[in-house]
Amino acid sequence: MTLRDEILEQPAAAERQLASSRPAIDALVARLRAEPIDHVVIAARGTSDHAAIYAQYLLGTVHRLPVALATPSILSLYGVVPRFARALVVGISQSGASPDVVGVVDAGRRQHVPTLAITNDPDSPLATAAEYVIALAAGPERAVAATKTYTTSLLAIARLSAELLDEADSRAALAAIPDALALALTVEPEVEQIAGELAGADRCLVLGRGYEYATAREWALKLKELARVFADPYSAADFQHGPVALVGTGVPVLAVVPEGVASAGMVELLTRLRDRGADLLVLSDSAAIRAVGTRSIALPPDIPEWLRPIVSIVPGQLYAYHLTRARGLDPEAPRNLSKVTLTS
Amino acid sequence: MTLRDEILEQPAAAERQLASSRPAIDALVARLRAEPIDHVVIAARGTSDHAAIYAQYLLGTVHRLPVALATPSILSLYGVVPRFARALVVGISQSGASPDVVGVVDAGRRQHVPTLAITNDPDSPLATAAEYVIALAAGPERAVAATKTYTTSLLAIARLSAELLDEADSRAALAAIPDALALALTVEPEVEQIAGELAGADRCLVLGRGYEYATAREWALKLKELARVFADPYSAADFQHGPVALVGTGVPVLAVVPEGVASAGMVELLTRLRDRGADLLVLSDSAAIRAVGTRSIALPPDIPEWLRPIVSIVPGQLYAYHLTRARGLDPEAPRNLSKVTLTS
Repeated sequence: MTLRDEILEQPAAAERQLASSRPAIDALVARLRAEPIDHVVIAARGTSDHAAIYAQYLLGTVHRLPVALATPSILSLYGVVPRFARALVVGISQSGASPDVVGVVDAGRRQHVPTLAITNDPDSPLATAAEYVIALAAGPERAVAATKTYTTSLLAIARLSAELLDEADSRAALAAIPDALALALTVEPEVEQIAGELAGADRCLVLGRGYEYATAREWALKLKELARVFADPYSAADFQHGPVALVGTGVPVLAVVPEGVASAGMVELLTRLRDRGADLLVLSDSAAIRAVGTRSIALPPDIPEWLRPIVSIVPGQLYAYHLTRARGLDPEAPRNLSKVTLTS
Repeated sequence: MTLRDEILEQPAAAERQLASSRPAIDALVARLRAEPIDHVVIAARGTSDHAAIYAQYLLGTVHRLPVALATPSILSLYGVVPRFARALVVGISQSGASPDVVGVVDAGRRQHVPTLAITNDPDSPLATAAEYVIALAAGPERAVAATKTYTTSLLAIARLSAELLDEADSRAALAAIPDALALALTVEPEVEQIAGELAGADRCLVLGRGYEYATAREWALKLKELARVFADPYSAADFQHGPVALVGTGVPVLAVVPEGVASAGMVELLTRLRDRGADLLVLSDSAAIRAVGTRSIALPPDIPEWLRPIVSIVPGQLYAYHLTRARGLDPEAPRNLSKVTLTS
């Protein structure tokens, strides 16, 4: 298995999870109905942190829940156990082996609040620590850069939301995700060509807003760890508080802008940047929005906004893979990295 | 007033706030004692977001409170009002004019939970929306890059924590902050020289951990908005999940490493980076830790860990100012920026 194989395996990985995760999610939903929560605390690192950002938007928007991204070092460095009254405590980790993420979930368990592990290893320390476990069912991930464990982490969170809602429409939309992932993979030839054209830039900006902020963060991380590009991710809102100063020649702007409530503001910002001469790669399901870019890649159409981040990262993963090769680097062996990081 | 004047004014600004903020903080503390909270939600953008990160560590470590950084666009883009049961809702904004930050605080007020504005303008929409207001008392900030409103935002949060604790030691430590800020300013000549030496690099990494993660984030933002350097900030923990691949020649690593629980792990990481040839600028109050760097700057000694971020950003601000000049840019007129950003 290579990184590219794992990217291409994502439709099958999503199928496997949809076939297997319902009992675990039903059990957690029953607990949350019996014992309502006021907020959610999520511990995660690296790529999993971006799945946590997706959860922040999804659970915030659909369930009105404030979601905190835990600072695990409060426990691991300062030895302080947070009070988790009326919280759902979630740990997200593909390996389930990060001691500081396990520590937060373990603290929640001891306080008898509901705890959930989202992990690719149902026998891991994280899975053991949590009362409820959603197994990603992504299959072994051997590449150092996480891809299929990211999209399946998002899928697990999306299904938890859908079952909390208990709506047929949401379930039907979820069931369509494997096909949408397959469609998202078909842009690989265009992606490879654009990656070749932009291979010379060692800095870039990655923009997304609302639900797609998670995509911007994850895309930028892939570009950093694989292609060694200084990729700076921003929500379009924060971007105008300072980092907009970085835009200039030789700094391509990559933007994830599916049609939706965030797109009008994004198009306005991108038009301003293009008028200043920025090299602009736009990912969108809308031809009109793609036309704002100097280059563009199509996203699959008709995916509801709350599910789109599961799909819109896929062309970004392919872009990172091909950019890495175009820059003469080996996507299977990123510099200085190992697969499991034991932060304590 | 220039940016440099505002950096140099920070000891006086802190004095003014310490002389004026007690009544507002006492009123909020009385409310929080009468009506205990389970968690805190903070809305902020840009530099103020870094003050929110400091609050996350301080209120988490000292008061065991989970602190969520709000995603204001859930309200402003998706029109969804979060449920704030048993939360303290805080808005941090120097201008008090960011509509999305105001929106979050206003939603908390309507739900009758305690709401706090931390702002430099006590007549601003944010101050009007909140039930409790801590005025920064920083004096007018005219430079586009925020400096004295950042350190005084941290000071307001620190004092809220100290009064919640109701301890003489904490109050005495707070009272010493203006002198510590003055001492931190005395390194300007060394900082100016080092900035000249590193002016050629247009990319860098900024590392901090625990309490100093906020400092790393804020320092990196100043480097981006003023000196147009791609400065990528990381907690040392997340850094090992991918971005460590970016370390190489021509990419200086800037690290904020005061002696404390986080310093042993940081020193280990920095030693590995230095052995790989990284150009390493270390800010520390410990001579032994400074010796790990290829260059170093002294931080004032004997500041308790929970107050240190108020002081340790100061050499970073001076560095950003002098690096900007050394790169032939104008620190008073950063590209593409305006002082008040009306994100909606």
